[in-house]
Amino acid sequence: MTATKSLEDLFVHLLKDVYYAEKQILKALPKMAKKADSDQLRQAFEHHLKETEGQVQRLEQVFELCGLKPAGKTCPGIKGIIEEGQESIKDAKDPDVLDAGMIADAQAVEHYEIARYGTMIAWANQLGMTDAAHLLQETLDQEYNADRLLTELAEGQLNRQAA
Amino acid sequence: MTATKSLEDLFVHLLKDVYYAEKQILKALPKMAKKADSDQLRQAFEHHLKETEGQVQRLEQVFELCGLKPAGKTCPGIKGIIEEGQESIKDAKDPDVLDAGMIADAQAVEHYEIARYGTMIAWANQLGMTDAAHLLQETLDQEYNADRLLTELAEGQLNRQAA
Repeated sequence: MTATKSLEDLFVHLLKDVYYAEKQILKALPKMAKKADSDQLRQAFEHHLKETEGQVQRLEQVFELCGLKPAGKTCPGIKGIIEEGQESIKDAKDPDVLDAGMIADAQAVEHYEIARYGTMIAWANQLGMTDAAHLLQETLDQEYNADRLLTELAEGQLNRQAA
Repeated sequence: MTATKSLEDLFVHLLKDVYYAEKQILKALPKMAKKADSDQLRQAFEHHLKETEGQVQRLEQVFELCGLKPAGKTCPGIKGIIEEGQESIKDAKDPDVLDAGMIADAQAVEHYEIARYGTMIAWANQLGMTDAAHLLQETLDQEYNADRLLTELAEGQLNRQAA
């Protein structure tokens, strides 16, 4: 007996990982917004929190399209990235340095998601799940925008203040 | 007494994280190359292993530019991503499905590095460390290329074989 996993199994595994990841991000973002010194950064985190709520709903729609109940699965990748973020800034007392550190950590989270949504879209298309692919693409576009906005904030002002 | 961390402290912290991450990747890539079914994928992993050796050397040069001895620091982000990768494919017996899963995991690693090198370059520039920024940019370009190559392999052939 070989336990041959299919591409669909891999897709569902990743869907559960990312569902768990988005839920962790929903918990982390309000804390980051509260800590942010820059108004622009706080607003960026608050805006992305709203987007993340929509992303969770879209993942739930994808579960439904797969005939599954939404369920998360502990995702060591996002846990590690969030843990690393908390650790790197835990001694930062200077508000500008804290902002620079939080932007870096948020961008690590964004890139994790960019990788995962990119993969899920490719697999969904391969599996003929066009509706799922469209939903996931909407989220991927938001993640790219969120990452770009953070780069603009960092390079435009915040790193200069932190230096 | 407040432990005010500077942007330079954040930079060194991240440099140590990424140095640890690259060493982990050096260990993971030969195993992935060995498991790869597709010749193209095996060659891609082997090629990126050579690149990673050069990336480690460039990080050592950056440590030197900072007047520091190279030293890694356990990086929960990359640990989690690699652990997640091993877990997701551990039951995959079909070689095409295994290849598709390994590409996905390698792309999660690449995106972690893209985020981290992007941040380090921005901070190095802000701190006036132009030589360090150039070294890190060389690596960032390689990471983007590696990610693009994996996407081409996945979308060109491997996902189709796995579906």
